[in-house]
Amino acid sequence: MSYVLHHAPDNASLIVRLALEELGVPYETRLVDRATRAQESAAYRRVNPAGLIPALETSDGVLFETAAILLWLADRHGRLAPAPCDAGRGDVLKWLVFVSNTVHTGLRMTFYPEKYVGPDPQAQAALLSTLRGPGETAMTLPRALALLDGFVATRDPDRAPDVLDLYVTVLLRWCALYPQGDTGWFRLGALPALEAMAQRLETRPSLRKAALAEGLGPTPFSNPRPAQPPEGSAL
Amino acid sequence: MSYVLHHAPDNASLIVRLALEELGVPYETRLVDRATRAQESAAYRRVNPAGLIPALETSDGVLFETAAILLWLADRHGRLAPAPCDAGRGDVLKWLVFVSNTVHTGLRMTFYPEKYVGPDPQAQAALLSTLRGPGETAMTLPRALALLDGFVATRDPDRAPDVLDLYVTVLLRWCALYPQGDTGWFRLGALPALEAMAQRLETRPSLRKAALAEGLGPTPFSNPRPAQPPEGSAL
Repeated sequence: MSYVLHHAPDNASLIVRLALEELGVPYETRLVDRATRAQESAAYRRVNPAGLIPALETSDGVLFETAAILLWLADRHGRLAPAPCDAGRGDVLKWLVFVSNTVHTGLRMTFYPEKYVGPDPQAQAALLSTLRGPGETAMTLPRALALLDGFVATRDPDRAPDVLDLYVTVLLRWCALYPQGDTGWFRLGALPALEAMAQRLETRPSLRKAALAEGLGPTPFSNPRPAQPPEGSAL
Repeated sequence: MSYVLHHAPDNASLIVRLALEELGVPYETRLVDRATRAQESAAYRRVNPAGLIPALETSDGVLFETAAILLWLADRHGRLAPAPCDAGRGDVLKWLVFVSNTVHTGLRMTFYPEKYVGPDPQAQAALLSTLRGPGETAMTLPRALALLDGFVATRDPDRAPDVLDLYVTVLLRWCALYPQGDTGWFRLGALPALEAMAQRLETRPSLRKAALAEGLGPTPFSNPRPAQPPEGSAL
């Protein structure tokens, strides 16, 4: 069966799309229309009870959670991650989980602070300034990204990209773009290994194709601009 | 080589210890002394640059991130999770990642609100009340646990436990215990499938052994009391 990707442009489904394009496997897309909050509809909850984008229909049922889908695809197709008992598997697993529960979740908190602290503007401001701070004892976004940059700097830049690279590259795009008008805490140039990775990846035909499908422009990762998607809404 | 688990009692290292005991593989432990904030020391940062407990020394390097360690161990030993291309792999992966980035991270936010919103008591209170609320549009702890309960209710209760069961069971303990004196939002009896799982698991010899090593008492998951560890500090 062909995979079916439930997606919205420039949402986390983009990360899964990059993996599907890199694998070169057939897939169909189903738009989740954020403009009508379709991700919260009863119909979508039957696909993903957590109401989050993406979901991927597979022969092993409907998958959700970006990191889980990436790992499942890599293992199923034997590419984009070291096999379970191969050297380097641990590195990809530990950083993939760290990216999921710290970087991705931390960004979500800055995009939707009301989901974490409610409507009080002062509480929202406290959340944003803490998560974007230097974090001597807390794992803030700048600290987490610096750790990732340090790890990526140890890797061979000429190897084929893996699921960790694809995941991180999309998150770097979001750091630079969202929330719109409030991204001054982030500077990709301060993360040289990640910047070089973003520049390398966006020239690959598979990633160009995905960027075109979601209206992401010519430098979607190293110097991104807001999506102008042919269908659907990014926000 | 024998595994080396860097741990503190009743910390996330407990989850890894349960997996090691279930697998029946040899391991040594190294206490990370929270009483002296050893997890923030330069020596521990060389083990885990994120400064978080647990870390596991393996033949594939030092692993960190609980979900990553669990999955690596399951795949390496061919137990505690379906193999990569087997049916049900997707279920375990997606719920494992959800537990990591939503339930575990959400609990961490309620244990250490200052790491997410800083020192303002009102901002901390807003974080706790939002995360513990019904969450019509946000994925709060009660909603996340109800989703997990729904999934676990669909599984055969007589199958052998997997890494997801072990992970969730420890988080249920923490819901009931921490922060001490402020757990009124949680009632295990409202989650019947999870409660039954916790009761089943705590009778297993492997889990009894781990509970004894960390001073967790006779009903560490279904009716927990604060840890009285023979060494180290839980907090």
